[in-house]
Amino acid sequence: MPVEGYLLREEDLVPLSMGAALLGTGGGGNPYIGMLRARELMRKGAEVRVLPLEALADDAWVAECGGIGAPVVGVEKIEEGGECYRAVRAVEEAAGVTVSAMISAEIGGANAIEPIIAAAMAGLPVVDGDGMGRAFPEVQMTTYMIYGAPAAPAAIADDKGNVVVFRQMVDMFWLERFARDASVAMGAGAGFAVAPMRGDFVKQTSVPGTVTQALEIGRTILDARSRRQNVVERVVEATGATLFFTGKITDIRRELAGGFARGEALLAGIGTWTGSEARIAIQNENLVLWVDGVAVAMVPDLIINLELDTGEPLTTEVLRYGQRIAVIGLPVHDLMKTPRALEIVGPKAFGYPELTFEPMVYSNAQGGERRA
Amino acid sequence: MPVEGYLLREEDLVPLSMGAALLGTGGGGNPYIGMLRARELMRKGAEVRVLPLEALADDAWVAECGGIGAPVVGVEKIEEGGECYRAVRAVEEAAGVTVSAMISAEIGGANAIEPIIAAAMAGLPVVDGDGMGRAFPEVQMTTYMIYGAPAAPAAIADDKGNVVVFRQMVDMFWLERFARDASVAMGAGAGFAVAPMRGDFVKQTSVPGTVTQALEIGRTILDARSRRQNVVERVVEATGATLFFTGKITDIRRELAGGFARGEALLAGIGTWTGSEARIAIQNENLVLWVDGVAVAMVPDLIINLELDTGEPLTTEVLRYGQRIAVIGLPVHDLMKTPRALEIVGPKAFGYPELTFEPMVYSNAQGGERRA
Repeated sequence: MPVEGYLLREEDLVPLSMGAALLGTGGGGNPYIGMLRARELMRKGAEVRVLPLEALADDAWVAECGGIGAPVVGVEKIEEGGECYRAVRAVEEAAGVTVSAMISAEIGGANAIEPIIAAAMAGLPVVDGDGMGRAFPEVQMTTYMIYGAPAAPAAIADDKGNVVVFRQMVDMFWLERFARDASVAMGAGAGFAVAPMRGDFVKQTSVPGTVTQALEIGRTILDARSRRQNVVERVVEATGATLFFTGKITDIRRELAGGFARGEALLAGIGTWTGSEARIAIQNENLVLWVDGVAVAMVPDLIINLELDTGEPLTTEVLRYGQRIAVIGLPVHDLMKTPRALEIVGPKAFGYPELTFEPMVYSNAQGGERRA
Repeated sequence: MPVEGYLLREEDLVPLSMGAALLGTGGGGNPYIGMLRARELMRKGAEVRVLPLEALADDAWVAECGGIGAPVVGVEKIEEGGECYRAVRAVEEAAGVTVSAMISAEIGGANAIEPIIAAAMAGLPVVDGDGMGRAFPEVQMTTYMIYGAPAAPAAIADDKGNVVVFRQMVDMFWLERFARDASVAMGAGAGFAVAPMRGDFVKQTSVPGTVTQALEIGRTILDARSRRQNVVERVVEATGATLFFTGKITDIRRELAGGFARGEALLAGIGTWTGSEARIAIQNENLVLWVDGVAVAMVPDLIINLELDTGEPLTTEVLRYGQRIAVIGLPVHDLMKTPRALEIVGPKAFGYPELTFEPMVYSNAQGGERRA
């Protein structure tokens, strides 16, 4: 990529949102509506440049923003559009700085697109990277917060004109708590921005290149479809993912609790996997995959459901009984696997005290060796 | 009162908090702990002047502040002390102004003392007046909000160092919602300040002289006790209150729901009233008094429970089975009885669609004519 990055084109938005949905590991919200909104802004003349991390000046201010709420709500409660933009303006005001770029808190799902919308509105570039390399359900689960970004000032804005600023916060867990409560009062869908960060910090702590990664994954899916190839196979091949399971959903439980979609999906194996069972735990995202009772992949590694026939990445809110899916895994970025990171995003942090994080076993062969 | 007001003395704090508890109509929180804290500040040299409304310059900025939360929590979760002060500093920062006086949102209960503590910490006077002339459970229920004070910026601060600023609010009902949720996240007890108000607005919309009124009521109670007089009779005589009922509590229900203490007290008449029954509806404060099924007093008029033998004003959280109480009523200030005010603080606003506000019938005679 050239040092000055590249301009995002209208035709990039569909593959970008498709790749983002895949990296969302079931969560992060469905990017479709945001994609339409970004397209509308581009058609009206907005230009958004994707800036490589290296291009950031050390003393530039960068705003990390994204939607906050329950993804299942986002499907029906359409955003007004300016939520993230207004949240960014509020943190700029509170911090007394002017930001020169936006970056995504999480590349997974709708939050890949949210900073692009805010950037289009502000006339600023987006940085090619994010704070997760996937999606996670809580605000402290970014590399930025994990590696010491201040918890305040942060801000949340809704579709009606309400803006709440978290002016002083004891720590990122308190920020999560206040922001989550405010997002629920806002109808479980709002725009959120954290304290502007310096360019040098963003360069050290971002998961790099993830906007481009999402774009390329989306292009792979679309290309495979247009060639009538097996999309799942193409994705596994292109990304180096592991295919853990192919099966049919036999049970799906979901509930909206405390602003989160929590639940569990049960699968019965089909194809190579006939006769075996799998279980996926969900809190907005896919958290843990058990195959025949063995935890074969777990947070922070990426567990992704693709529709078996189309390769469509499935967010947890569209999972339904009878769906035939492939469950693939991608190793998370090293920044998310340090002891410090695992305290925040490891399986214990998600309520699985019995699980100690083990990196997923890499196998590109269908019916991989974990079975043995 | 001289135009420059008067200095609050240490010995004023007990009668002031006692009068405030009475005007709290059962709510506003128990002022005892705040009284101890204000006394401590005074003993360390803090001076707080009580300023008559007339002494305010038209263009002076005044901060309205108070505790927010469930009074029943305030008894056990002791404040750190600087909550209101920090909330005031946050609204000053957000509004870009410097305030020159504090005023109470509600003279009733702990919130009579909270602005005195904040004023002592800031080295500022408190204004002799408040925004209710009593206590009410929600933030939009002040004369200020009713008569058009802006809903933002407002701020809430807790004991741990968290400060949340409500930077832009659609209206006062949204402010109530966000502030209530934040107060619950803060442990159902926090300091709250609304947007600084101009002196001329405060002069037009305050219930005047209520700090002095509370002080005088408290002095009456203490004086009657020291003379071994009937305190209830002395209070009724001095304040022009109506004695509606004397009885024994036969049932008390209280629950903490959504940050409020809600419930109901049932009474069986004793003395003059033997044989009759009364019922009091509670949402932090006493809302409606029914005697033998007839609503004889209702919000916004003041319904006050005094311990029969001691004349001690009883907040709703200390009501208990078997307690012998006198229920008295005081008419609320005219600012709270306009059609505009009744929309916010009338019985319908509190969930009694069947009740249309009727001012309480004045009768200073024990066993008043309502009985007939």
